[in-house]
Amino acid sequence: MEALTLDIATLTQAYAGQSFDPVQLVEEIYRRTALRGDDRVWLHLRPKAHVLEQARALVARRARGEHLPLYGLPYGVKDNIDVAGLPTTAGCEALRRVPTRSATVVEKLDAAGALLLGKQNMDQFATGLVGIRTTTGHCHNVVDPAYVPGGSSSGSAVAVAAGLCTFSIGSDTGGSGRVPAACNGIVGLKPTPGVVSSRGFLYCNRSFDVPPVFALSVADAYTVLDVLVGVDAEDPYSRPAPHALAPNPLPAHWRFAIPRSDQLEFFGDTAMRAQFIRALGHLKALGGEAVEIDFAPFLEAGRLVFNSALVSERWLTYGAVIQSHPESVHPVVRTAIANANQYSAADTFATLYRLQALQRVVERTLARVDVLITPTIGRLPTCAEVEADPVNANAQMGYYTYFANPLQLAAISVPAGERDDGLPFGLGILAPAFGEAVVGAVASALESHMRTPIRRFQPTPVPAVLCEA
Amino acid sequence: MEALTLDIATLTQAYAGQSFDPVQLVEEIYRRTALRGDDRVWLHLRPKAHVLEQARALVARRARGEHLPLYGLPYGVKDNIDVAGLPTTAGCEALRRVPTRSATVVEKLDAAGALLLGKQNMDQFATGLVGIRTTTGHCHNVVDPAYVPGGSSSGSAVAVAAGLCTFSIGSDTGGSGRVPAACNGIVGLKPTPGVVSSRGFLYCNRSFDVPPVFALSVADAYTVLDVLVGVDAEDPYSRPAPHALAPNPLPAHWRFAIPRSDQLEFFGDTAMRAQFIRALGHLKALGGEAVEIDFAPFLEAGRLVFNSALVSERWLTYGAVIQSHPESVHPVVRTAIANANQYSAADTFATLYRLQALQRVVERTLARVDVLITPTIGRLPTCAEVEADPVNANAQMGYYTYFANPLQLAAISVPAGERDDGLPFGLGILAPAFGEAVVGAVASALESHMRTPIRRFQPTPVPAVLCEA
Repeated sequence: MEALTLDIATLTQAYAGQSFDPVQLVEEIYRRTALRGDDRVWLHLRPKAHVLEQARALVARRARGEHLPLYGLPYGVKDNIDVAGLPTTAGCEALRRVPTRSATVVEKLDAAGALLLGKQNMDQFATGLVGIRTTTGHCHNVVDPAYVPGGSSSGSAVAVAAGLCTFSIGSDTGGSGRVPAACNGIVGLKPTPGVVSSRGFLYCNRSFDVPPVFALSVADAYTVLDVLVGVDAEDPYSRPAPHALAPNPLPAHWRFAIPRSDQLEFFGDTAMRAQFIRALGHLKALGGEAVEIDFAPFLEAGRLVFNSALVSERWLTYGAVIQSHPESVHPVVRTAIANANQYSAADTFATLYRLQALQRVVERTLARVDVLITPTIGRLPTCAEVEADPVNANAQMGYYTYFANPLQLAAISVPAGERDDGLPFGLGILAPAFGEAVVGAVASALESHMRTPIRRFQPTPVPAVLCEA
Repeated sequence: MEALTLDIATLTQAYAGQSFDPVQLVEEIYRRTALRGDDRVWLHLRPKAHVLEQARALVARRARGEHLPLYGLPYGVKDNIDVAGLPTTAGCEALRRVPTRSATVVEKLDAAGALLLGKQNMDQFATGLVGIRTTTGHCHNVVDPAYVPGGSSSGSAVAVAAGLCTFSIGSDTGGSGRVPAACNGIVGLKPTPGVVSSRGFLYCNRSFDVPPVFALSVADAYTVLDVLVGVDAEDPYSRPAPHALAPNPLPAHWRFAIPRSDQLEFFGDTAMRAQFIRALGHLKALGGEAVEIDFAPFLEAGRLVFNSALVSERWLTYGAVIQSHPESVHPVVRTAIANANQYSAADTFATLYRLQALQRVVERTLARVDVLITPTIGRLPTCAEVEADPVNANAQMGYYTYFANPLQLAAISVPAGERDDGLPFGLGILAPAFGEAVVGAVASALESHMRTPIRRFQPTPVPAVLCEA
C-alpha cells in the first residue's frame, strides 16, 4: 500500500473490491505517521487502538446495511474544533480543555462513516496565514520545507497533502481554509458562511467563520461538503442554502472577473505571477472570458478583518487567556488581538455599516460575471522571510483571501499547475453567497483540463531544524 | 367636504366621478389645518401655494395618461425623513439642515402621484414611544388629549387619525410605527426590515430601522406599501422580498401565538386588558386558535434595544449634536443615548451573537403558528403620568413592540374596537420576516369582522395648555 493515494475514488473502489478494508487502512496510516516521525502535523493523534476499534465498528455497521457515504475515509480536524474526549487547545496549552461533546461537523462525519484520526496543528488562535505562528513547533510545507506550510489550518492541509488522510476540516476566517491548500498543492473549499455549522468551534469572527474542507480533488471536497451542509438548530449563524451546492456543468461560454492589472499584487514573487497568467490561459481555453474589475472594494473589506472593530470578535474568544497567560501566547498573535480593546460600540456599528455597503457593491460587480478569479496567494514566502517580517509577510498572504467571508462569498483554492520553481500554485475561484455550484464547475473543469495529479504519501520526515518559529 | 374621509377608496372614487379634484382637496386640507390651529402636528407644513401647484401638475400628468397609483392622495412624513428643500430636524433645531435630495420613499411616493403636505412632529431623535418627548411642544391624542399621542411618529399618526392626510410615513425602530397608531385608533403597518428603503432617514438603529405606513385602513396601508417596496441600490440594508407581501385570504382555520398569561402585562390598565380579551374572542370567531407561547425571548430581544450596545447606533447619528448642543436635547432623550458610550466593540459582538440566537429561538416558536398576537401597548398613560415617570411609562409602552425589528419581524397595529372608557385599542399582529401577507390577512379579516369605521376629520383644536411636555 506504499503508493496508495487516499482520495475517495481510490479508497471506495478498494473497499468495494475488497482489496483492503478500513482496519487495514488504519494500519497503513499509522505506519505512515510513524515513518514521518515528529512532523508536527498532529497536535493530538488518537491512539491507534482507538481508531482500529472504530474501523472495526464501521465494518460491522456497513455489514448491517447502514448508509455510510464517507465509509472508512480517514480525516482530521484542526485543533480549534471540539472532539469529545480529545483536548482542544487552538495551539495554546493554557487554553486546553477536554470537551464532552464533538462539534456538529464531527458528529456528522462520524455518522457518515468517516474515521477521525486526531487534531491538527495550526497558527495559534487561527490568527495567521503562515502556519508558523506557534509556540510549540510547526509542520512543514510538503513541497519544500524552507517555505511556510501556510495557515492557519497548517496541519489540516499538510496532513492531506502528505497522504496521511483523505480530507481535513479546518476553519476559515480570512483565508485559513485556502492559503495552506495553495501552499501544499491541494484543494481547499471554503463554503458560504452559514451553510456548514460551526457549533463546537473556537471562533475568530463568529459572524462569518466557516469550516472549510481540505481534499485531494475538487470532487472529494464536494463529496464531504455534501455531508456537512444543513441547518443546525444549535448554531444561530447556520442557514439553509437556497439551492443545491454540487458543481454544475461548465457552460461553453462563461465570464470571470479578475482584478484590474494595477491591483494584481505578487509582492515580487515573479514565479507566482507567471503561473497565474498561465492559469488564466487555461480558463480561457475552457471557454472563460476575462473581465477586469475594480478590486478596491474587495481589498477594503479584507482590511476590515484586522484593521477595524471586527478584530474584537477574537477578543471574546481569546481575550481571557491573553490576559491570564500572556506568556503562553505567540507575541505576534498577542499584538494582533490586543488592538481589539481600542474599539467602541459606535466604531463597531460604523464598521458593520461599511461592510454592508461593500457587500452590495461587490454583489453588483459579481453580477456581471460567473466567478471571480485570483491567485490564492500572491507570494509564497520562506519561513525565514516570515520570521524577519512576521506581520507584513502574513498580511501579503491574505491579499486575495481576507475579504471572502466578510463579503459572504463562496470560494475554493484549487491546484493549477506548478510554478517554474516547482512550488505549488493555487488558483482562487470565488462567487457570491451560495455560489458553490459555479465555483465547483470551474474548479472541476480546470482540474480535468490540467490533469492535476492526486498527491501521494510523502514519507520523508522533514528535519525539524530547517524552519523553527 | 366637511364629512369627507380621506381613505383611498373615498378619494379615488371622488376623483373618478369628478366630484372634486386634487386641487380642491388641497384647499379642503388647508381649511382643516387652519381650523385646528396650532395643533403641533406639523413641524414644517409646505406653503399651500406649493402644494396647489403640485396638485395642478398631477391633474395634468393624469390627463396625459400617466400611471399614478397614489394619484392625489395627501400624505406627510416624519421629520427624520429628508425632503428636498424642507428642513430635517428630528425634533431638534440644532440639527436643522435642508437636504437637496428627498429620501427614496418620498421619491417613490411623488412618482406615484401622492401629494406631500409636510414634515410631522415626533419624539426627539425618534427616541421615545410617548410622543411628548420634545422641546418644542407636542401634538395631541385625537380621542382624549389628556392621554399621550404615542410616538415617536406622533405627528404622523395624529395627522392621519385627525383627517388631515390619507397616510403618513414614519420610522419604526422599537415601535414608533405602531404605538402612535394604537393610541389614535388607526392602522400602523411596519414592514420587515429591508423591504422598504430607508435611504434619506436619520437612523436610530441603521441595521433594523423600518419606514412604517400610517393609514386609515388595512387596505390603504398595503396599497401604500406596494408602492414603497423594492430594492434600493443606494440603501445597503435594502433587500428583496422573496414573495408577494399583499394580504392573503385568511384560511378557515389558523393559529395565533399569544404570550403566556403570566407574561401578559397591562401595568394596571384594566380597560386595555378587557379589550384585548375581547379582541381574542373576535380572532377565534374568525377561525383562529390561540397557542400560548413563552414570550421571554421576545422580551429579552426587546430589552437589547436600549439596554445593550445596540443603543450606540443612535450615537452615530445623534452623538455629535448631543455633545455640541446638549441644551437643545430633551433631558430624557439625552440620558437614554448617553449610555451609548459605555459599550465596547466586544460588548457589541456579544450582543449581536445573543440577538442572532434569539432570532433562531423565535423563528422556531413562530414556525408553529401563523401569527403572534399581542396588544400593541399594554397601558395608555396620560401625559401627566408620563411626565411624572418619563422613563418607566415609556418603557412600558414598548413591552410588546421593542423586539419586532431586532428579530426581523413584520408587524401591524390594527384598531380592534374601543375600550370601555372610549379610548382606542390597537391589536399587534406579527409574523417572521416577509410575513406581511399573513399579517395583512388577519388584520383585514379583523377589520371587516369588527366593522372598524374610517376616522373622520377632527376639527376641534386641542387646547395647548392641556398637556405640556
